[in-house]
Amino acid sequence: MPSFPPVEEQLRQIRRGVVEIIPEEELVQKLERSYRTGKPLIVKLGCDPSRPDLHLGHAVVLRKLRQFQDLGHQAVLIIGDFTAMIGDPTGRSKTRPALTLEETRANGRTYFEQAAKILDPERTIIRYNSEWLGRMTFRDVIELAAKYTVARMLERDDFEKRYKAGEPIGIHEFLYPLAQAMDSVEIQADVELGGTDQRFNLLVGRDIQQAYGQEPQVCLLMPILEGTDGVEKMSKSLDNYIGITEPPEEMYGKVLSIPDHLIYRYFELATDIPTEELPAKKEFAERDPRNAKHELAWTIVRMYHGEEAANRAREHFERTIIRGEAPEDLEPFRPTPDEGTRIALVNLIVQAELASSKSEARRLIRQGAVSIDGERVTDEHLEIDLAQRAPFVLKVGKRRFARVVWDEAQQPA
Amino acid sequence: MPSFPPVEEQLRQIRRGVVEIIPEEELVQKLERSYRTGKPLIVKLGCDPSRPDLHLGHAVVLRKLRQFQDLGHQAVLIIGDFTAMIGDPTGRSKTRPALTLEETRANGRTYFEQAAKILDPERTIIRYNSEWLGRMTFRDVIELAAKYTVARMLERDDFEKRYKAGEPIGIHEFLYPLAQAMDSVEIQADVELGGTDQRFNLLVGRDIQQAYGQEPQVCLLMPILEGTDGVEKMSKSLDNYIGITEPPEEMYGKVLSIPDHLIYRYFELATDIPTEELPAKKEFAERDPRNAKHELAWTIVRMYHGEEAANRAREHFERTIIRGEAPEDLEPFRPTPDEGTRIALVNLIVQAELASSKSEARRLIRQGAVSIDGERVTDEHLEIDLAQRAPFVLKVGKRRFARVVWDEAQQPA
Repeated sequence: MPSFPPVEEQLRQIRRGVVEIIPEEELVQKLERSYRTGKPLIVKLGCDPSRPDLHLGHAVVLRKLRQFQDLGHQAVLIIGDFTAMIGDPTGRSKTRPALTLEETRANGRTYFEQAAKILDPERTIIRYNSEWLGRMTFRDVIELAAKYTVARMLERDDFEKRYKAGEPIGIHEFLYPLAQAMDSVEIQADVELGGTDQRFNLLVGRDIQQAYGQEPQVCLLMPILEGTDGVEKMSKSLDNYIGITEPPEEMYGKVLSIPDHLIYRYFELATDIPTEELPAKKEFAERDPRNAKHELAWTIVRMYHGEEAANRAREHFERTIIRGEAPEDLEPFRPTPDEGTRIALVNLIVQAELASSKSEARRLIRQGAVSIDGERVTDEHLEIDLAQRAPFVLKVGKRRFARVVWDEAQQPA
Repeated sequence: MPSFPPVEEQLRQIRRGVVEIIPEEELVQKLERSYRTGKPLIVKLGCDPSRPDLHLGHAVVLRKLRQFQDLGHQAVLIIGDFTAMIGDPTGRSKTRPALTLEETRANGRTYFEQAAKILDPERTIIRYNSEWLGRMTFRDVIELAAKYTVARMLERDDFEKRYKAGEPIGIHEFLYPLAQAMDSVEIQADVELGGTDQRFNLLVGRDIQQAYGQEPQVCLLMPILEGTDGVEKMSKSLDNYIGITEPPEEMYGKVLSIPDHLIYRYFELATDIPTEELPAKKEFAERDPRNAKHELAWTIVRMYHGEEAANRAREHFERTIIRGEAPEDLEPFRPTPDEGTRIALVNLIVQAELASSKSEARRLIRQGAVSIDGERVTDEHLEIDLAQRAPFVLKVGKRRFARVVWDEAQQPA
């Protein structure tokens, strides 16, 4: 029989970063019963296999799930392949193509490989919901749909807004929350985790479980993490995300780019810093945001890539960003001149892949984002005589470098 | 290749009694194409096998279907066994128990046996919709539901009223019109018939057919026939119905009981009187409602029981109702006296099963509904000396008679 930490201690961990627990008294009861009987709670997290690239925003709920695992409870990851295989049945959204079974399985694996950086993979149950939803007949759907009313469904924020605005809501959209609720029925979830944007759907799960004679799940809502811009929800399409598989330097640099007011929030929601150390981090972030941000960046890289990679990333940034120097390990770049030994700066920038086009290169020069050996260049028509000038370090923006070298062999015949 | 009457002639028959054809120009086009190609229209009528007792109200649409058959088109009767087998999934309605497959099949046969009195059974295709609806998966349902919006569904009169009144609408109720629409898709209906209360559902059929790439059906709406009370919709639960399997005398008598203003409406909607003779019936009903009603009653009995039965029913009523006489073939009834040769009138009425209780018998006497040999009795305490008075005819209400006889053997020992 597994033994759990005392309920009060569990609650302290579970409450970390949480926005809402619905209802908290039921969670306490479930934890007390679990403590008494030694039976772990079943904690559900649903995920969308049509978007398998995880970023720190997704990691918030995954981390909460990991906390439940560390407390001894049973994590169940539901891969929502059933709806992913349907895609957008109206055909209006080109961003939701229907996936094949193979694609959802592949995406599910990709998702899990990434999630395994956060979860304890040995103690995670993975279920594909097409297993039970795919078995349901029209009759089953009618019996399910009879357990919920139109009026209550229209209370969901986005439905209500769209209905009032006269924007079409397909009737199938009413079926998705019910399908998600069936996932809870299938696994007899005690707790379901989700972002605050999932509040309504998680509550439907409670009602449907009761309608099927089960004890309702407790809904545990986590905040939606802001992206590196500090304003919008972190998302790939807004390009304000930090992917959990990004290389250490990239990840470190992106964390450094967040605004100061998010430092503590990231510590709380996106790191494995022990809950009891959080107050000290809060104080640190307020007192010395620059160094606190480095510690945050180091911590996040350490979590996803290990301590060594985190140290290297820190050194890299200390060299390149703080001291303004080029990284030591930069490969020499040998450009092909335009004519003789001469090359236009814009062509050099494009050849070195520091910009994707000449027009972008020109724009960067005009913006003062280009320097040679630390000296800003503002003449977009500048030509360089490589034989005279090289070797030198060409820098574009904050993090793009080329160590430009020259020898006679490069000269065109 | 079958040949059809000219389109104008067909339209004249089809328009008989119709409330609305949506849209009429499409019906004309379909009829013209059918006339040109020799291909009959597919005309759909859905029926509910959970209520297999047909009355003249149901017969209105069946008769319209028969008219299409007589014009050479293909009638398809859809037995809605799919929803009948589900019953009321909320369990709230005790009047809609879920039927078994066997029950729906038996009811379907009962329905068809009755409908065969109106339709040409040889040229009627019968389909049970569980055949295709029962095959549908959750995925199919989502794809179907995606073809219709919540807002449009809420435009349905009863949904709108209930939604505004705060009365619950189960989400499954949104699926029923879609299921019915799938019946039209399955059989590729050209025309669907229904009462005006089916207007919305039939229109959904049009939309869903188009969404599945089919030409939309034309919706042909028939009036809802008033019952014998002349006010409410004919229905079994209101006991204002004339069942199509009722015995000739009962049927004849019930038709005679309708109010005069319905005579012509019944001729138009409930008889097979040729359309061209209807104006004469209208004039007759206005000029001489008493005899017009007898002709109507005779016609309806003739339709369901044949000419001989219709003649007998008329004679029966001429004797019993018009002349106030007891029918000739009345069996003698031998009552058991209360004491000696005497019996209280109320006991006699109950013994003869002309009333179900003494209190009802007393009420009938007080109302002047009881007569002996044609003479009204109003004394509810009347005692009769059978030895002196019998034989006599006891009459209660309009159609209940007993030929009371007496001989010494009846006297209690």
